[in-house]
Amino acid sequence: MKIAGIIAEYNPFHNGHKYQIDMLKDMGFTHIVVCMSGNFVQRGEPAIFPKLKRAKMALSCGVDLVVELPTIWSMASADKFAFGGVSILNEIGIDALCFGTECADIQKLKKTADVLDSQSFENELKNQLNTGVTYARARTLALELVAPELSKTIETPNNILAVEYIRQCKAINFTGEYIAISRIAVIHDDKKTNEHYASASLIRQHINDEKFIKNFLPEESFKIAQKCVNTNNYVNNISNYERQIISYLRRLNRGDFAKYSESNELENRLYKAVNESTSLCEIYIKTKAKNFTHSSIRRSIMKAWLNIPNGLDLIPPPYIKILGSSKKGLEILSKISSDKPIFSNFSESKNLDENAKKVYNMELMCSNLYATCLKDIAIPNFELSTKFLKVGN
Amino acid sequence: MKIAGIIAEYNPFHNGHKYQIDMLKDMGFTHIVVCMSGNFVQRGEPAIFPKLKRAKMALSCGVDLVVELPTIWSMASADKFAFGGVSILNEIGIDALCFGTECADIQKLKKTADVLDSQSFENELKNQLNTGVTYARARTLALELVAPELSKTIETPNNILAVEYIRQCKAINFTGEYIAISRIAVIHDDKKTNEHYASASLIRQHINDEKFIKNFLPEESFKIAQKCVNTNNYVNNISNYERQIISYLRRLNRGDFAKYSESNELENRLYKAVNESTSLCEIYIKTKAKNFTHSSIRRSIMKAWLNIPNGLDLIPPPYIKILGSSKKGLEILSKISSDKPIFSNFSESKNLDENAKKVYNMELMCSNLYATCLKDIAIPNFELSTKFLKVGN
Repeated sequence: MKIAGIIAEYNPFHNGHKYQIDMLKDMGFTHIVVCMSGNFVQRGEPAIFPKLKRAKMALSCGVDLVVELPTIWSMASADKFAFGGVSILNEIGIDALCFGTECADIQKLKKTADVLDSQSFENELKNQLNTGVTYARARTLALELVAPELSKTIETPNNILAVEYIRQCKAINFTGEYIAISRIAVIHDDKKTNEHYASASLIRQHINDEKFIKNFLPEESFKIAQKCVNTNNYVNNISNYERQIISYLRRLNRGDFAKYSESNELENRLYKAVNESTSLCEIYIKTKAKNFTHSSIRRSIMKAWLNIPNGLDLIPPPYIKILGSSKKGLEILSKISSDKPIFSNFSESKNLDENAKKVYNMELMCSNLYATCLKDIAIPNFELSTKFLKVGN
Repeated sequence: MKIAGIIAEYNPFHNGHKYQIDMLKDMGFTHIVVCMSGNFVQRGEPAIFPKLKRAKMALSCGVDLVVELPTIWSMASADKFAFGGVSILNEIGIDALCFGTECADIQKLKKTADVLDSQSFENELKNQLNTGVTYARARTLALELVAPELSKTIETPNNILAVEYIRQCKAINFTGEYIAISRIAVIHDDKKTNEHYASASLIRQHINDEKFIKNFLPEESFKIAQKCVNTNNYVNNISNYERQIISYLRRLNRGDFAKYSESNELENRLYKAVNESTSLCEIYIKTKAKNFTHSSIRRSIMKAWLNIPNGLDLIPPPYIKILGSSKKGLEILSKISSDKPIFSNFSESKNLDENAKKVYNMELMCSNLYATCLKDIAIPNFELSTKFLKVGN
């Protein structure tokens, strides 16, 4: 048994994701486990399809085990997102962590991680942050000064995540190997496509165009997506959740915004923007300043709406929740030696300790609110009644 | 100066309302003041048009002064609705309170009020309530036993309100007269119309049908309605606020529902219904039981969403907020001898005492949330920037 681990959103699962899995199998990995974002994703939005649908896509396309990255970490900044995912995969026990990157030179990524962890970089980062640029920009500028040969490494989103994965793995003494797989043909968020590959964001934009998306999704994933769309359960239409988030934000006072804001000063700008705006887009635009990114604004707003205060992402996820498994996935499960509780449904969750229960209840509330973002509102606690998902071999 | 007072919703202002005003003028009343529901109405819904538009309709059609019945009282059961309205009009000082009724026999209405205030009725009411019927039904049954000749009086909604007005007037020693004006041609909520009169609920249902509503609204009111509809600011489409209310309710626990529920047991049924339902209609149906009415369910839900806990309606409104006035309205204002603060805009509200400020801030929040129910979401605090409305002579 040789297990590869992946941290992913599968929003939705497309040919690029399938390519990564096929590559790992070609490399001799016998089992693949994925730690997948729950119903909310890193860019501060509800995922286009419910998590169980996205897990099913993955299982139908060669993944053996899908466990959940709870919203606390799945909707966090890159370092905390990586921290959550790496923590869970390490508990499960993997031989290699695999990630898609723009730069496939693993040594360069590792070296970048080392520099980012160094004191000289830390000092330079502070200097740069003091100029008032975004955190991401300050890092690039600091890296340019400390290690100019690496400065391009953290300019692309998948490299940024890859470097964070490596840093978090170092922090918890991960002993497995790293496998960087080059993203093929299209880069993250790219508007262009080639014959088989398109970015997830482009696919989401065209989710109602069956003919278009068919080219870029593996057959099984396409069938699930098609069913989601045809039964109207897709969500990535801002109008489904805009009104309720705006109305919720209008109740908050300045202090509340501080609890959910990822960056300093953001709370004041958010509070002001909310009290002047009539759409989410207007709130984003009015809040934007050079020292924080659009993603961090979106995440802060979503965290406010979901009532996820800052700081919860500083501890590792306190449990492992299984979203689905193949037969081979059960083999992975049978060999896990983690102390963390492992469960797949609500009735099994009853023995969680206080802290784990708090996180899990928060996740259930996120699901209940996610259900109101679907085109057809789903019943609350719809995930409580879902069974352990078993797919394929 | 001879002042008539009316308590109304004007949701929207139609020919029946105009008829009532014309009648009062024919009777020799020189000035007409209306205490009008704010943005939320007694049946537990947002009003179809914002309060300032509805006030403008009234002023354009012969009313001289429109003051606000804050949501705490405008979205309360009939007795508290009457209590709020009568308290405000009495502070302003009116010579007569006028109401539309199904039964124009004022002596019968007064007698009914007396019976409802009697100990023998109170005892019988308790007996009937113990059988588990709605409060309204228990009252009718108790009245049938105590004063059978009056039992039909409180079977229609406007009579019920009229009797409550009289009871509340008695309680505060109102010294003016009562004027009951028969509702003509159509009864409350009626589906039928005649040439000029249709119920407000029927008009709301057809609000997008210009040709239809034109028949039933005075010209000036029609023009305002038309403008509201054409600029998409009408709200009486449940889909505008359904999603946000459902998502808000899903956050509440059983205890929260108790804080907002008008009747006993309602909280448990509400909590259960919310956690099983995917639409407001489904919540209403699943909550309904023989001992509470649809209106009280809707009000409890809206109060939960607006965060208006029970009990605030037990004190009289602590201020008089002017929504608009004609020149003659200013004459009424100049002779008010009330101790209560009277104001028309936000800057004047700054001197309110703590209690009044609390009520006013709650009203501002109601307006901010109402703004998210409009077809095009309006800016928050849009009422803060509105000027004192002056219309006509």
